[in-house]
Amino acid sequence: MSAVEPFDAVDVIKGKRDRRELATDEIDWLVDAYTRGVVADEQMSAFTMATFLNGMTRREIRDLTLAMIASGERMDFSGLSKPTVDKHSTGGVGDKITLPLMPLVAVFGVAVPQLSGRGLGHTGGTLDKLESIPGWRASLSNDEILAQLEADGGVICAAGSGLAPADRKLYALRDTTATVEAIPLIASSIMSKKIAEGTGALVLDVKFGSGAFMQDIERSKELARTMVELGTDAGVATSALITNMNVPLGRAIGNANEVAESVEVLAGGGPSDVRALTVALAREMLDLVGMTDVDVEAALDDGRAMDKWNAVIRAQGGDPTAPLPQARETHVVTADRDGVLVEQHALPFGIGAWRLGAGRARKEDLVQHAAGIELHAKPGDAVRAGQPLFTLSADEPARFPRALDALEGAWRIGDAGEAVQDGGPLIADRIRA
Amino acid sequence: MSAVEPFDAVDVIKGKRDRRELATDEIDWLVDAYTRGVVADEQMSAFTMATFLNGMTRREIRDLTLAMIASGERMDFSGLSKPTVDKHSTGGVGDKITLPLMPLVAVFGVAVPQLSGRGLGHTGGTLDKLESIPGWRASLSNDEILAQLEADGGVICAAGSGLAPADRKLYALRDTTATVEAIPLIASSIMSKKIAEGTGALVLDVKFGSGAFMQDIERSKELARTMVELGTDAGVATSALITNMNVPLGRAIGNANEVAESVEVLAGGGPSDVRALTVALAREMLDLVGMTDVDVEAALDDGRAMDKWNAVIRAQGGDPTAPLPQARETHVVTADRDGVLVEQHALPFGIGAWRLGAGRARKEDLVQHAAGIELHAKPGDAVRAGQPLFTLSADEPARFPRALDALEGAWRIGDAGEAVQDGGPLIADRIRA
Repeated sequence: MSAVEPFDAVDVIKGKRDRRELATDEIDWLVDAYTRGVVADEQMSAFTMATFLNGMTRREIRDLTLAMIASGERMDFSGLSKPTVDKHSTGGVGDKITLPLMPLVAVFGVAVPQLSGRGLGHTGGTLDKLESIPGWRASLSNDEILAQLEADGGVICAAGSGLAPADRKLYALRDTTATVEAIPLIASSIMSKKIAEGTGALVLDVKFGSGAFMQDIERSKELARTMVELGTDAGVATSALITNMNVPLGRAIGNANEVAESVEVLAGGGPSDVRALTVALAREMLDLVGMTDVDVEAALDDGRAMDKWNAVIRAQGGDPTAPLPQARETHVVTADRDGVLVEQHALPFGIGAWRLGAGRARKEDLVQHAAGIELHAKPGDAVRAGQPLFTLSADEPARFPRALDALEGAWRIGDAGEAVQDGGPLIADRIRA
Repeated sequence: MSAVEPFDAVDVIKGKRDRRELATDEIDWLVDAYTRGVVADEQMSAFTMATFLNGMTRREIRDLTLAMIASGERMDFSGLSKPTVDKHSTGGVGDKITLPLMPLVAVFGVAVPQLSGRGLGHTGGTLDKLESIPGWRASLSNDEILAQLEADGGVICAAGSGLAPADRKLYALRDTTATVEAIPLIASSIMSKKIAEGTGALVLDVKFGSGAFMQDIERSKELARTMVELGTDAGVATSALITNMNVPLGRAIGNANEVAESVEVLAGGGPSDVRALTVALAREMLDLVGMTDVDVEAALDDGRAMDKWNAVIRAQGGDPTAPLPQARETHVVTADRDGVLVEQHALPFGIGAWRLGAGRARKEDLVQHAAGIELHAKPGDAVRAGQPLFTLSADEPARFPRALDALEGAWRIGDAGEAVQDGGPLIADRIRA
């Protein structure tokens, strides 16, 4: 350690290890020194494990978040003529809500800057889905983002690498050191990027259930409360919905097929759960910017949301009328008996789609846009023996066996009258400051 | 990670993080993969922090110890004509006991293979002390060690780097990641080296108090019990004394001056605490090899221990009659009032001697053999204003101010009748299997 450093990493790690509340100066220094490489990876991983096991106070989490924001640049939407509101989901199987939601909210004259990421593991990424659309590009300059928000009100694009670089470095470390699932670390990671992005308001879709990052609803609520507090403390109007991810959302799991399903919702149709969650999140977002009495559903039913979608896709080079990619191979799984579909578990369907090529295991992997799963029945539906239950799509047939392995036990057909998998309501709670 | 590895480091870290008892295979793999570089430093530090905070079962600690032994070579003393017994101290201020103890026990026809280390921080190292003796060399080949044990019965030398290399790598990592003071990690670190060394019996001197690695006596007992169990499970007859390190041991703190004090003890004199602890540990060691009724004190008083000392020092090239190095500069601290010395704290005296040049901050530093502190009064002694309390010795006078800073508050003169610093008895407990 250089003599000019104001703290010693070992002392800071010891503090967290021994449950001492760290000072703001210490946290600022730790994040800065880690970004500069003065604090080594093995020191930061010991710190994050101590944080995982001993937690952080609200003040420490806020300091960590602010330190990660300070490690990079911040965007500024204050020059726009309209309020900004963003949505962030903790990720789920079949979660394509950003796609119909962004144009739906933009219809009401609100700017929706959806700075998004790519998928990793069994949950898909918004940018991966949109890249199914011929011509569409994810990378925009800051000037392009501002211009598009002013002109069209909506943008979905890649978050610049300049936002919270400390978080990027720390996240990669946490991934290899079993320190991902700690609430202070998740909350500061998400909120540092969202606050640095400069949105005026933010709605969080915090998922719970077997296909979610956090299975337990109480832990999901704790994460939501922590993030709502962080946003509020930083001057961003923030609220959260706690939503169910025991069952895949909608019928499409993949990339191109999720775009198609989103377009159905924008046309006033689509699966009822996708429409319901889109509408609920839109209401929550509009509420945060003071629009409490607008008719959100009408904008889906009368084509205004679809018009907005076409405009923003075109603004980013996409052709919303072009055919979406089709997989070369499909494999249909049928019911082996008459009965009722009583179980359909999100996690194995997410892993199955991932193994078909829809997701990536490492950041540098490419996704196959046409790969995925189409569900033909949802829990509670009566089925007949031989009826298709779901269809797997892939470019390489060699992928089917491993996907089917993942899907073992993922669904069950029971008798009529048997209790159907009950993950509780789609929207379990709402958390506000 | 290579596909041929049987485990994933993230899963093993998660196991310890989530308080799952790890399987023997997992621990074996983790230590081996870390030694091979397949498990990265940042993964191992997350694992050690999780171990620090969540602990390990007796079985896990045994597995960790055996895995570290398996990472290197083992010595074998079974070909000797006599039993072997070793002593290990967790380290203290003025702890020179190995020097008089080794020849004292060897007098009774027992082989004492004292494979030792160098000092780091405020506690000195046995090899550093002995290197004050002109000509003495610390490095012996395995054949030399065996020959000397057979001929003289005693050897103090550097432990070969081939013993438990995983422990060496892990210890360096723990030092920078605030994971040193965990009992499972300390116990496995010490015992892996001692078991690999091949001794048949082992006595542990586990210190507690302000100058010890562990201040708290209960934690010291827990460490001792853990190590006694580990040794016993590995077939090494092991016991421990729990000894007081609130006050420096003896009157000499340094290197050459500790050799001189050890020679006083071997001549039948010396400070009463040094003699008492030497005798107690010798009895414990002889007890473990079945010699329960030998007169240990007689061997100090009749010159047999001194003769053995001279023989083993000569066997390693040392001249026991040569003058020991003298420091160029001294600084005497005197009493500022009449009264009784009621406090004398080990830790600041250890740090003071270290700053005078007797210790090292980094492995590659050299120690100054003549640097150190000589105590002229011990707690309970009556003192007069102006009387010397202790003398600092150093080769460079510039070292005195920082040493004196460390010694601020390290002692106190009170009134006659005032309670004297009470750290409890010198030997607080004895722990056997």
